[in-house]
Amino acid sequence: MSSSYVLGPNQYGKAECRLVRVDRYSPAHVLSDLNVSTQLRGDFAAAYTDGDNAHVHATDTQKNTVYALAKQHGVPSPEGFLLVLAGHWREQPWVTGTQMTAEQYAWERIGAGTPGSGHSFARAGGETRTAVVQTDGDDTFVVGGLTGLVVLKSTGSEFAGFPRDRFTTLPETDDRILATSVTAWWRYTTTDLDWDAAYAAIRAAMVDAFAGTHSLALQQTIHAMGAAALDAVPEVAEIRISCPNKHHFEVDLTPFGMANGGEVFLAADRPYGLIQATIQRAGVPDEPRAWASVPAFA
Amino acid sequence: MSSSYVLGPNQYGKAECRLVRVDRYSPAHVLSDLNVSTQLRGDFAAAYTDGDNAHVHATDTQKNTVYALAKQHGVPSPEGFLLVLAGHWREQPWVTGTQMTAEQYAWERIGAGTPGSGHSFARAGGETRTAVVQTDGDDTFVVGGLTGLVVLKSTGSEFAGFPRDRFTTLPETDDRILATSVTAWWRYTTTDLDWDAAYAAIRAAMVDAFAGTHSLALQQTIHAMGAAALDAVPEVAEIRISCPNKHHFEVDLTPFGMANGGEVFLAADRPYGLIQATIQRAGVPDEPRAWASVPAFA
Amino acid sequence: MSSSYVLGPNQYGKAECRLVRVDRYSPAHVLSDLNVSTQLRGDFAAAYTDGDNAHVHATDTQKNTVYALAKQHGVPSPEGFLLVLAGHWREQPWVTGTQMTAEQYAWERIGAGTPGSGHSFARAGGETRTAVVQTDGDDTFVVGGLTGLVVLKSTGSEFAGFPRDRFTTLPETDDRILATSVTAWWRYTTTDLDWDAAYAAIRAAMVDAFAGTHSLALQQTIHAMGAAALDAVPEVAEIRISCPNKHHFEVDLTPFGMANGGEVFLAADRPYGLIQATIQRAGVPDEPRAWASVPAFA
Amino acid sequence: MSSSYVLGPNQYGKAECRLVRVDRYSPAHVLSDLNVSTQLRGDFAAAYTDGDNAHVHATDTQKNTVYALAKQHGVPSPEGFLLVLAGHWREQPWVTGTQMTAEQYAWERIGAGTPGSGHSFARAGGETRTAVVQTDGDDTFVVGGLTGLVVLKSTGSEFAGFPRDRFTTLPETDDRILATSVTAWWRYTTTDLDWDAAYAAIRAAMVDAFAGTHSLALQQTIHAMGAAALDAVPEVAEIRISCPNKHHFEVDLTPFGMANGGEVFLAADRPYGLIQATIQRAGVPDEPRAWASVPAFA
Repeated sequence: MSSSYVLGPNQYGKAECRLVRVDRYSPAHVLSDLNVSTQLRGDFAAAYTDGDNAHVHATDTQKNTVYALAKQHGVPSPEGFLLVLAGHWREQPWVTGTQMTAEQYAWERIGAGTPGSGHSFARAGGETRTAVVQTDGDDTFVVGGLTGLVVLKSTGSEFAGFPRDRFTTLPETDDRILATSVTAWWRYTTTDLDWDAAYAAIRAAMVDAFAGTHSLALQQTIHAMGAAALDAVPEVAEIRISCPNKHHFEVDLTPFGMANGGEVFLAADRPYGLIQATIQRAGVPDEPRAWASVPAFA
Repeated sequence: MSSSYVLGPNQYGKAECRLVRVDRYSPAHVLSDLNVSTQLRGDFAAAYTDGDNAHVHATDTQKNTVYALAKQHGVPSPEGFLLVLAGHWREQPWVTGTQMTAEQYAWERIGAGTPGSGHSFARAGGETRTAVVQTDGDDTFVVGGLTGLVVLKSTGSEFAGFPRDRFTTLPETDDRILATSVTAWWRYTTTDLDWDAAYAAIRAAMVDAFAGTHSLALQQTIHAMGAAALDAVPEVAEIRISCPNKHHFEVDLTPFGMANGGEVFLAADRPYGLIQATIQRAGVPDEPRAWASVPAFA
Repeated sequence: MSSSYVLGPNQYGKAECRLVRVDRYSPAHVLSDLNVSTQLRGDFAAAYTDGDNAHVHATDTQKNTVYALAKQHGVPSPEGFLLVLAGHWREQPWVTGTQMTAEQYAWERIGAGTPGSGHSFARAGGETRTAVVQTDGDDTFVVGGLTGLVVLKSTGSEFAGFPRDRFTTLPETDDRILATSVTAWWRYTTTDLDWDAAYAAIRAAMVDAFAGTHSLALQQTIHAMGAAALDAVPEVAEIRISCPNKHHFEVDLTPFGMANGGEVFLAADRPYGLIQATIQRAGVPDEPRAWASVPAFA
Repeated sequence: MSSSYVLGPNQYGKAECRLVRVDRYSPAHVLSDLNVSTQLRGDFAAAYTDGDNAHVHATDTQKNTVYALAKQHGVPSPEGFLLVLAGHWREQPWVTGTQMTAEQYAWERIGAGTPGSGHSFARAGGETRTAVVQTDGDDTFVVGGLTGLVVLKSTGSEFAGFPRDRFTTLPETDDRILATSVTAWWRYTTTDLDWDAAYAAIRAAMVDAFAGTHSLALQQTIHAMGAAALDAVPEVAEIRISCPNKHHFEVDLTPFGMANGGEVFLAADRPYGLIQATIQRAGVPDEPRAWASVPAFA
């Protein structure tokens, strides 16, 4: 191999450690269900260039560390647990930066009135909560998020006034179904917060903004959701939102002598509109290190 | 092609018509979200043997019929709508049997207190409700069901007393996590019922049986869920239940000087146990035609 | 629980044991990559009704058996290995019937001319080969198959002459794209065959029949593929074929002043036609036990 | 909404336009099968802040443009077609930047010797080819790539010499299966190249490097693949490679009195190692605009 190659940015670790933690401290067990990934950055070049693993904390060791620290420290919240994990890895030799990520799956209690009421659960479905904790040297960054929050308005959505060129055939509409599956990431300005309360407040604000906005464009609805999230939690500096426009086509029933009247729709798969935007709190400085390896929209 | 071939059982139709129906009769819209498939059986051999389509109701026509009948009759429930569809197709020339199937996705209202409260929804996640309506000549059969109901018990589950042969290494346990994703189909003995109420009663009975059963085997829990479903709705003749045993392995933390204590688990993907059983009401005759093309367990 | 319930058909086992077998007997390693599932039928009722596991060969034991027998007997072919597995389980106490299934993933050699040529492989993609071996008492049945064989004709396909009713809007066409993803299962009349040669012959026959048939209906093409498979291997008694009609819509470019000319298509996802048929060799008796738990088309 | 919010980076367009192009210029048709997505950047803020769509080229128009330009210009290669698309959109009012992406699915000819030989195809499986073309004002950038290239070595892979801490349990090994599914993106320094030839050369170089490298770490293999790609095509400035370590665990057969001998493996799903690195040609300047919205590894 020629010496004319340079090793550029790189990271490695263990992905998708499925971690279920049961707190048995009271008869009503508490269940945490996470999918945890760890990535390390640092002085690892010799593994690439020479197959020298002297600095390579094995990904198997990273996996073991996830489960051991979950036992030692519990899983208070995705962000809280990732802060513990990052705190461990940032101290290890040859590590200069870390990226810890998690998905969290929600469960609800079942079996009220049965002998199993304290330890029986059904998976709640709906959105998946996400979290990213990154460190760069001594600095730590927390990004919360969610994905797969599917919402729909059966009216209160228009789309008109757009430019028409030679390839434009779409008619304007003042009443359509608006549906999307929200993915969002938001950057916190602190590493010490009631993460569950913040998540709940942001989710509620976004859902209410979706419902409460008479929509002239999905762009407008996204902006309203982002602004609502920033209003809800002052510790959020900015939010990135990515929304497919899940088209619902009003079926043409006129060949059958029927007027549809906005009642019968075909939910389409592909293609779909895709709108992605960042909403930032004015005056808060950027922090690109918080977003390393997280999808960007430009 | 030789004349020594015989066309055996066959069926055809349009699969996965994504149908969203909005009832706008009051300010609080009602949303139905289905995935509908139709299959016809009958005098269609010439299409196979000679490419003669004179009897072939186009699958595109079957799709149009789904949307047109949804406009005309509404979508009172999956079973109710499939009965309408089957009632249409059984009357068409060359059709001797039909299979109509649907998945239904649940939505919940969002935005209470906002201007969008009556027409804004979030997808509920959790299980998918299913339905199969089949006809054979003048006879009609209704099978309800669900899939993807993920439930978990963090204690109250044992597995011991099983035979040990030369390939057995599994230790016995008196405390494990029991988790599964329930798929079930149940056969009704009527075509006229409050389908939504029956579904709700069966789902609740199965969930409570899962929670309330101290489990010595997933088999026992499945039997309890099936019996509870039959208890809940007298119009159910039998139920087929298929349950993966979603293994949660207690992580061995002893190399790190820790006792796990049933707190930290790795949720595994594959392989998984798979238990499938039928629970029947004693004295009710079988009806194989209700189950045509539906998975069987023997 | 009332005594008025009866345990109906049931089976259980370990699903999706991902088995990779490397034969190192020559410098050119031979790779077998399977996904194996086992299901047992027999005297297991007490586990359901009483949580009594005395007869329950643990699914973990079934998994161990897959790997141990792969070591002992090798993996000559999916059918060959499943016959070994079934031969083991049919002899175990309380077992009266078995269902062994496998998916096989194909790999091709890479790195010719490099030091790794004998032990380096790329996954071949394309279809997945499948196999089902079932036993009922002393009788053994072998079903071969494939899934995900995606084929397309860019011309040589028509669809016309179908009946028109009030819900029919589809125009007739004498030139369309025909595309499908073939799933097939075929029943052998023997348990002793060169399984790899038979598979190759059947696959080739089906592909050539798809290509060589000027298609008036997907039904006709399916029938031709099935008949070709029976012609190719005399030990095949019947074949079940399930084909989605993967619609490719010719895009209407007339609003842009262009004639499409059969050049530009939108490949659609849902809904899709679904055609399912059985082609049987005349005079060969049915054998429903070979098809237990395998999808049927009526 | 408060004026204290700022709209940050944003883009929008139509995702996943499934485009199949048939060139019928000779009896041997040529098939192109792409999944095309378009994203525009520019003066679109009013749609977010005020629901003013005066500048919003509808995503439906973007879809129409994909199909119309495919008719007008053909689909010479993914990169070639995206350059046409980008050339169109960069000239439209209010557009200051574009991101055009495509996946390409490979097909192979079938039916040699049959009447359908010139127009019959089977999907090739294996990896998906990818391309990204971006513009920023007058500048244009081309990134090629692939995903889902699954490769495996049944020997010739070691992992040893890694650090051991209190959470390390992994034994060292001098013989293991190494398997991964390669995803790669590479940046070209030109917009005028024989894209198909370049793709073929890079793919071949990476595959041979995987096979030919005796691997001391997956990191080393990745570096070798990246360097080989840069060697193969001088117009490649840098390559980003992301590789899951698809673990194959040698099954412990000693409880059954057998020595495994590197023959029988369990292919695991999760967790998996994940190694991601960039290999750059020395002396070539960075170009972050080529990589906007493309996954980064730091």
